[in-house]
Amino acid sequence: MNHEDPKYHAWAARRKERLDGLKADLLFAKILEKDRAALANAITLIESTKLEHRKEANQLINLCIPHSGKSWRIGITGVPGVGKSTFIEAIGEKLVHEGHRIAVMAIDPSSSVSGGSILGDKTRMEKLATMDEVFIRPTASGKTLGGVAQHTRETVILCEAAGYDVILIETVGVGQSETVVHSMVDFFMLLMLSGAGDELQGIKRGIMEMADGILITKADEGNENSAQRAKRTYEGALHLFQAKESGWVPKVAPISSLQRKDLDLPLQWWENYFNQVRASGYLNFKRKNQDLQFFEESFQYQMAQFIAEDPHIRNKYAELKQRITQGTSSSYEAANELLQLILHHGKL
Amino acid sequence: MNHEDPKYHAWAARRKERLDGLKADLLFAKILEKDRAALANAITLIESTKLEHRKEANQLINLCIPHSGKSWRIGITGVPGVGKSTFIEAIGEKLVHEGHRIAVMAIDPSSSVSGGSILGDKTRMEKLATMDEVFIRPTASGKTLGGVAQHTRETVILCEAAGYDVILIETVGVGQSETVVHSMVDFFMLLMLSGAGDELQGIKRGIMEMADGILITKADEGNENSAQRAKRTYEGALHLFQAKESGWVPKVAPISSLQRKDLDLPLQWWENYFNQVRASGYLNFKRKNQDLQFFEESFQYQMAQFIAEDPHIRNKYAELKQRITQGTSSSYEAANELLQLILHHGKL
Repeated sequence: MNHEDPKYHAWAARRKERLDGLKADLLFAKILEKDRAALANAITLIESTKLEHRKEANQLINLCIPHSGKSWRIGITGVPGVGKSTFIEAIGEKLVHEGHRIAVMAIDPSSSVSGGSILGDKTRMEKLATMDEVFIRPTASGKTLGGVAQHTRETVILCEAAGYDVILIETVGVGQSETVVHSMVDFFMLLMLSGAGDELQGIKRGIMEMADGILITKADEGNENSAQRAKRTYEGALHLFQAKESGWVPKVAPISSLQRKDLDLPLQWWENYFNQVRASGYLNFKRKNQDLQFFEESFQYQMAQFIAEDPHIRNKYAELKQRITQGTSSSYEAANELLQLILHHGKL
Repeated sequence: MNHEDPKYHAWAARRKERLDGLKADLLFAKILEKDRAALANAITLIESTKLEHRKEANQLINLCIPHSGKSWRIGITGVPGVGKSTFIEAIGEKLVHEGHRIAVMAIDPSSSVSGGSILGDKTRMEKLATMDEVFIRPTASGKTLGGVAQHTRETVILCEAAGYDVILIETVGVGQSETVVHSMVDFFMLLMLSGAGDELQGIKRGIMEMADGILITKADEGNENSAQRAKRTYEGALHLFQAKESGWVPKVAPISSLQRKDLDLPLQWWENYFNQVRASGYLNFKRKNQDLQFFEESFQYQMAQFIAEDPHIRNKYAELKQRITQGTSSSYEAANELLQLILHHGKL
């Protein structure tokens, strides 16, 4: 969207008016009633940068927290072209068929730059997008990966309160986005192509180490042998890693999303996994740790926002950076000056 | 060292007394005169957590900055057993022979846990440790990787002011320490064993991508063929990465530190590299960016220290974490409360 366009300004004004009318308690009541429009509006509210919107958003999230946490939170990653969307479309249908309600979202750190999100293109998930039991939310907006992550975590809480019991979070970007998704899901699923080494697929060892399950995609007719070879390779590789804290042993399976082949396997994994980690108490432990980690990240994110928005501190911050590059101040000393400025901010 | 031991308390008291007597201007004058004892004391001063020591340390670093920056800052990484210390011993001798003065240090995030540092065991570098032209500093102390990183960066500045023109920084830990070392050096050297895939050596793709040079170690007699094969493999792998911003094309070579074979190759790389990036202005650009990144990290580190040390905020921080794990507050809201508390800290 062109921000110079008068149509944009009209749209932004309408959007603001719509958001200004949103009240936490009303939204909350409608979300509990599974009102999709209210859920969509609520997500737009949490993505707003306006202070008054943020206040309502905080209130809404606190109302929703007691009604959240009952879903399966599943992360889905893999290089572009591995078939993440096709898998989500196929497994989504199957889940709905078994009585689940599904929310699909994505983490895409590049979307803020390109201005568009891949998941926003719902034609990739044609059937899912038309189902009443499915809520597809394009990539959260935000200028930074930290912002996108925050909005996605909060969106998960809202969707759970709205009764979605399977949350699928796709990584669209590469690099840091896998770690971000991993930090907010219970089960981390890695999709791999057969017939290509993990080096060629650009998958870091660390990503494979995070996986609770690996699916070899596109194990269609004619491709079964190489998929079976890939299965053995990845099973061998997984054995080299340390046992998982969850007690869960990562699984590997070839599937064909197009031919709807062996899709019951990942479903079985999820059922077994959640039975196991609920019984052991690990799920609760993991989620609490994720919340604490998010607390730290959120603090850093909000501090950065404060520095960027306070005119006096923003100027001083720019000046300190200039002194560092000119070599007239050490980085440590400049950081200390910034800290002191923030600590005595209220007194000025 | 056992902290319960009365000898420890006596030692700590003597150390404090010694540090209390250290003044920035006197230390600075002695450092410029290449006084090794003064340099060692100065490094102990920057590692001290006492506020008055930190003040002198800041002053000292600012005095040293204009006299710093003229060295080659070289990072050396590779899995345990690859031969990092043996390489440093061999290349160190060669560098001294060619008229250089060398400072060797290490980043070891685990040393704060284990209480000891591998480099502290100087017997690993027997010859180097006895040379006048070589300054070996055991791993910087600090409770966190952030603290260790800060002390190491400052140690580099002090060593440069003391006339050391080659700084070798070894990664001793695994995982994050490579990234930390990479963030403070000009040239990043990766040591690899032949006859083992990079998966087996636990080297992440991202580490290889950071490398400006890869040395295949232990290419001793009888091992030449596999070393040559490894060379071709790594050269092939490096071609898949994007061209480096520096314009430098990463090099690969087999060496034998024990047999002192082909050690002139890494030396040539360094000479060519520094000629190239000094001429292009890239070195200056890269170091300024590193300083700015350090500024951000240092700010976060100091903020965390402030939170941990202020009794009121420390208690509130613990309470907020408890509310998060009890589900009575969202992570975002708790982070906002912490931020507001810090911003209005001066007014309480």
